[in-house]
Amino acid sequence: MATTRGGIDLGGTKIEAVVVDGRSKVLGSARRPTPTEGGPPDVVAQMAAAMVEACTSAGLESSELRGVGVGSPGLVDPQTGAVSSALNLPNWDQEYPLAEDLGKALSSVVRVGNDVQVATDGEFSLGAGRPYKSILGVFWGTGVGGGIILDGKPWIGRGGAAEIGHVVVKVGGARCPCGRRGCMEAYAGRAAMEAYARKQMKRGKKTDLFELMEERGRTRLTSGIWWRALERGDRLATNIIDRAIVALGAGVASAVNVLDVEAVIVGGGIGVRFGQPYVDRIAQAMQPHLFNDTRPPDVRVAELGDLGGAIGAALLARGPRPRTSRSPRLAAV
Amino acid sequence: MATTRGGIDLGGTKIEAVVVDGRSKVLGSARRPTPTEGGPPDVVAQMAAAMVEACTSAGLESSELRGVGVGSPGLVDPQTGAVSSALNLPNWDQEYPLAEDLGKALSSVVRVGNDVQVATDGEFSLGAGRPYKSILGVFWGTGVGGGIILDGKPWIGRGGAAEIGHVVVKVGGARCPCGRRGCMEAYAGRAAMEAYARKQMKRGKKTDLFELMEERGRTRLTSGIWWRALERGDRLATNIIDRAIVALGAGVASAVNVLDVEAVIVGGGIGVRFGQPYVDRIAQAMQPHLFNDTRPPDVRVAELGDLGGAIGAALLARGPRPRTSRSPRLAAV
Repeated sequence: MATTRGGIDLGGTKIEAVVVDGRSKVLGSARRPTPTEGGPPDVVAQMAAAMVEACTSAGLESSELRGVGVGSPGLVDPQTGAVSSALNLPNWDQEYPLAEDLGKALSSVVRVGNDVQVATDGEFSLGAGRPYKSILGVFWGTGVGGGIILDGKPWIGRGGAAEIGHVVVKVGGARCPCGRRGCMEAYAGRAAMEAYARKQMKRGKKTDLFELMEERGRTRLTSGIWWRALERGDRLATNIIDRAIVALGAGVASAVNVLDVEAVIVGGGIGVRFGQPYVDRIAQAMQPHLFNDTRPPDVRVAELGDLGGAIGAALLARGPRPRTSRSPRLAAV
Repeated sequence: MATTRGGIDLGGTKIEAVVVDGRSKVLGSARRPTPTEGGPPDVVAQMAAAMVEACTSAGLESSELRGVGVGSPGLVDPQTGAVSSALNLPNWDQEYPLAEDLGKALSSVVRVGNDVQVATDGEFSLGAGRPYKSILGVFWGTGVGGGIILDGKPWIGRGGAAEIGHVVVKVGGARCPCGRRGCMEAYAGRAAMEAYARKQMKRGKKTDLFELMEERGRTRLTSGIWWRALERGDRLATNIIDRAIVALGAGVASAVNVLDVEAVIVGGGIGVRFGQPYVDRIAQAMQPHLFNDTRPPDVRVAELGDLGGAIGAALLARGPRPRTSRSPRLAAV
């Protein structure tokens, strides 16, 4: 029986696909930009293309996979694999049968989970979360997402738990991309930080951030650009990141005061790019807000790196193959 | 076999004792002030006296009880019933064998749990939380305590979960009685509100709060005094309560964004005294901060009232009697 599995991390800017063996070792991978126009079928076509490319680099065909797992934004129905309200994907407001459509394209069985939850599951099973039974995953990127594992099992509440980006750190504070005020993400999310940087620049603050962006031919401030600006000692960039860390310290400490998990695992585009030194700064910023401050949780950087979301998604394809499998020849592989 | 149980809510200002039947119906109750001097043995003596009085009013002796449950502040070892770091009790910093000592005094078996967790368990099993599988208990009183039930089971983390009073609502904000800044309790706890009211009065703000306190022969602003001041339209009292509700809205919404529970049950001295109209105001104040704002949790006032903590504590005495029971004749009752 096939133990090789596929995993896809469906992000707002890129689609990351991996093929892993039975021990979750990466055999092949591929990356494609996420379509910014069109609709769900166009996104699915790119996902299929990325998966096929990852399979080619691993020397097999997608129909030979035990299955494919997808970490998706938006609202996911884990039973049917349908996805709705994926607001950072083009015209993906209504429910769309992602698992069914992608399954046909790949001649494989597709399971879909929430993107940050599968990334948390990945870190818990295979990464920095392995030593613990209860963790909080914090994904510091365009937004700030979260995933929770309590006593070895994901906690998703009524489907909407772990929205730590929208923990309030300042009543009446900065406007968040979600429209609310004072959310942690309003200070720490990359999108919010970029908007704030533009505003400060217009007000006359000097910064190299946007020059760096143009030099690199980008249209937004990537984690790499922020990093470069910090290295150069850019004052505005430094201030904005300092402000983000204060917010992350308060917001993550609040979540820990509620959950009392053993460890916080920090991933996401910025988290992974900035690494343990900045994760240590977040831990320091948490300290003054932790109620049990003599016994803080461990705070560690995600270990699976950029491919973590896709590797975590591939875990979804581990389960027994559902009876409704469309490709009976897989059973004999 | 005896189904009658005792329950004690050990608070910083009062000790509440109940005797309940097998269906948790209250058969008798008693209340004593918590000693403010002396040490753990003096507190235990008052607890025993309150329990004996409750038994007398129920027409039985303490040795006839199936057991006695205690909801205690501080750090509780649920296995041994020892309590340490009960900072609102006199000289109770070191570990003290509460269960053992009280058990001897009452000739009964004593189990000890965390005060807000047993109150949450009470509301979950017997009160406003009955219709739900996952709830957050919020105890709005001298401080703001919390208890969590997820999928029918208490979640206590490493023993320090549900400290929702210390969720940050304003980075760099007001000083909390715990010494930290910007905690929800710094705005909403009765102790913090009283300190703030005194400060505002010294700065020249007019208020009847302290006159009402003296009229009633009290030394602190009880829930009843706050209530009376609001009824009179006292402007400072109204402003401070409004400010508390804003903080509760943000802090409880933050916890809900993390946990996504079905319901929030609001108890505690102020919560019970102020009732559903104020609980509805908290729900309204949560709304702008809820990430899943189209599906807010139910927010309900605790149903067990002032005796809720003691009734919840009595649930601890339901379990099978431990083999180490000191009073063998009970087994035959």
